[in-house]
Amino acid sequence: MDIRIPLKQELDLSYNVVLGELPQLTFDKKVAVVTNPKIAGLHLNYLLSKISAPELYVITVPDGENYKTLSTIESILDNCFDHRLDRKSLLIGFGGGVIGDMTGFAAALYQRGIDFLQVPTTLLSQVDASVGGKTGINNRFGKNLIGSFHQPKAVYIDAHFLSTLPKREFGAGVAEIVKMAVTFDKTFFEWLESADLNDKGQLLKAIEKSVQTKADVVAKDEKEHGIRAALNYGHTFGHVIEHEAGYGHYLHGEAVAIGMVMANRLAVRVGLMQQDEADRVAKALEGFGLDLGYQIEDVEAFYKMFFLDKKSMDNKITFILPKGLGDVVLTDEISKEDVIAVLQEYTA
Amino acid sequence: MDIRIPLKQELDLSYNVVLGELPQLTFDKKVAVVTNPKIAGLHLNYLLSKISAPELYVITVPDGENYKTLSTIESILDNCFDHRLDRKSLLIGFGGGVIGDMTGFAAALYQRGIDFLQVPTTLLSQVDASVGGKTGINNRFGKNLIGSFHQPKAVYIDAHFLSTLPKREFGAGVAEIVKMAVTFDKTFFEWLESADLNDKGQLLKAIEKSVQTKADVVAKDEKEHGIRAALNYGHTFGHVIEHEAGYGHYLHGEAVAIGMVMANRLAVRVGLMQQDEADRVAKALEGFGLDLGYQIEDVEAFYKMFFLDKKSMDNKITFILPKGLGDVVLTDEISKEDVIAVLQEYTA
Repeated sequence: MDIRIPLKQELDLSYNVVLGELPQLTFDKKVAVVTNPKIAGLHLNYLLSKISAPELYVITVPDGENYKTLSTIESILDNCFDHRLDRKSLLIGFGGGVIGDMTGFAAALYQRGIDFLQVPTTLLSQVDASVGGKTGINNRFGKNLIGSFHQPKAVYIDAHFLSTLPKREFGAGVAEIVKMAVTFDKTFFEWLESADLNDKGQLLKAIEKSVQTKADVVAKDEKEHGIRAALNYGHTFGHVIEHEAGYGHYLHGEAVAIGMVMANRLAVRVGLMQQDEADRVAKALEGFGLDLGYQIEDVEAFYKMFFLDKKSMDNKITFILPKGLGDVVLTDEISKEDVIAVLQEYTA
Repeated sequence: MDIRIPLKQELDLSYNVVLGELPQLTFDKKVAVVTNPKIAGLHLNYLLSKISAPELYVITVPDGENYKTLSTIESILDNCFDHRLDRKSLLIGFGGGVIGDMTGFAAALYQRGIDFLQVPTTLLSQVDASVGGKTGINNRFGKNLIGSFHQPKAVYIDAHFLSTLPKREFGAGVAEIVKMAVTFDKTFFEWLESADLNDKGQLLKAIEKSVQTKADVVAKDEKEHGIRAALNYGHTFGHVIEHEAGYGHYLHGEAVAIGMVMANRLAVRVGLMQQDEADRVAKALEGFGLDLGYQIEDVEAFYKMFFLDKKSMDNKITFILPKGLGDVVLTDEISKEDVIAVLQEYTA
């Protein structure tokens, strides 16, 4: 005999991304800020001057993709328990994408889920990682393979933090902006081709446009059953590059930039994209200071690593390939020969 | 300026609890059974004879509450990656509550969530743990403090497995059945007072009634914002007992039985329950072979440990106290003096 457990639910996980100077935030609950020593040294004063809460804690974890591990999550959780955070408490992720992903993941797991906010401090996390509710960690099998979907209650994007951003990190962020444009919006891409992102007004416009684009996609497909996967353009190759080079060698956005160019070459090869369109994307990326060179030692080994990608574990590789500018297709019907041929171009 | 991320969702997480002999299960995806060496030795043949899948793996983890840790979860996940499970793959939790909680948790985290089934093999997990979607692990701060809500796709309750269940584990399961009755259903309790649960027909009736009771509660309150917390009757005390005695000393149900009696004494003391009602519950539990004796060394230390309970971390202890038989109240307004007085009774 069967007993039915009826669990039809209507949820509203909507939230706001607030662009502009961080407002004063007043809470009536315990708050813990999760950050790293570098961001804390540069900007914690600024953040703390904006927050008031009956109890406020700061938890720092080591900086970098290498520390995006389950044991760092355990250390964040241990800190939360030490400070007796309860089910109503709030975490604030204050840093780049690594901090944001881990803060969200810790919030998802602490007592089976508490609220969190994102205050991203890098261009990359402002335009991409902090919006969308994907949380998680890396392991020896690859990036973000363990995690959960846990939406923030709000995201605050304040350009204040970008003033101290190293040039490389700025470029890595721009790479994701270019990704949004090539994936969804040709007009935006054409605007970017002649934009000066060192100009604050133009930078803010690019951030806003990227966040709006991502917001539209996430709203349609939170759990990545369809269109959201298109945001991974450049990531199928990029994840392998990051993994092969060792986390920390390339910034995520740098690897994605190289990955987009690889995807474009594949798209040109299989007749989806025109050569001159691929050239324009490469030129735009180089114009923003991104180095697109990469050396593959062993193309077969590189190819095998695709299969650890979440989108490709069903014995097929899903590629996200531009169909011109402003549109992409998802396909798992690219022959190994075509992929290998593109990878071969990187062995010279 | 604000960008809204609209995420209104309608979800249907409903599932069936199937009582009776495990049916033949045929899958068109990769399946991994998570179990422990003891259950595997006793019953894996039976389970495997019922499953067909294109790829089928068995993952064993050590037996017992002591191993319900993040590192065991990591080992389950590592096995899943080794076998290239993908987003469509399925986990099957095959064992008691510890196995079920960890299988669900691993399924929640693997690639941000894959499906899982529960095939509980103990009476306790059949009537309680396998239904409701609470997953998680213990840490040095307490039980189930890290985890997530992740609903199974189905639960299969087959009394076949109970034939090998040790007497203590059987009693621990009965304790949770009594809990359901005292919490929600006086008629069920009165039936239990004269039931013979060594009789298979009566046992199945008790299981069915318990599952149906839990199903009704979970359907009303999946995330435990209200009525579901009533299921924790006996657990506020029970968790401290398990923690203080060291995981593995008491079975969960044994600790809950002692905890129910403590809660009843407190309920009598504050005028919620009649002494004869408390006596009837104790008599029923003892009749099913449960030992209700417990020795508290340090009442202040015991009291402090309440504050690590998820329901009590906001500096108040939430007690679930019977208001007679078949009804309970949640209250955080019990004075420390009353609690200490009850704990003192256990120091003699």
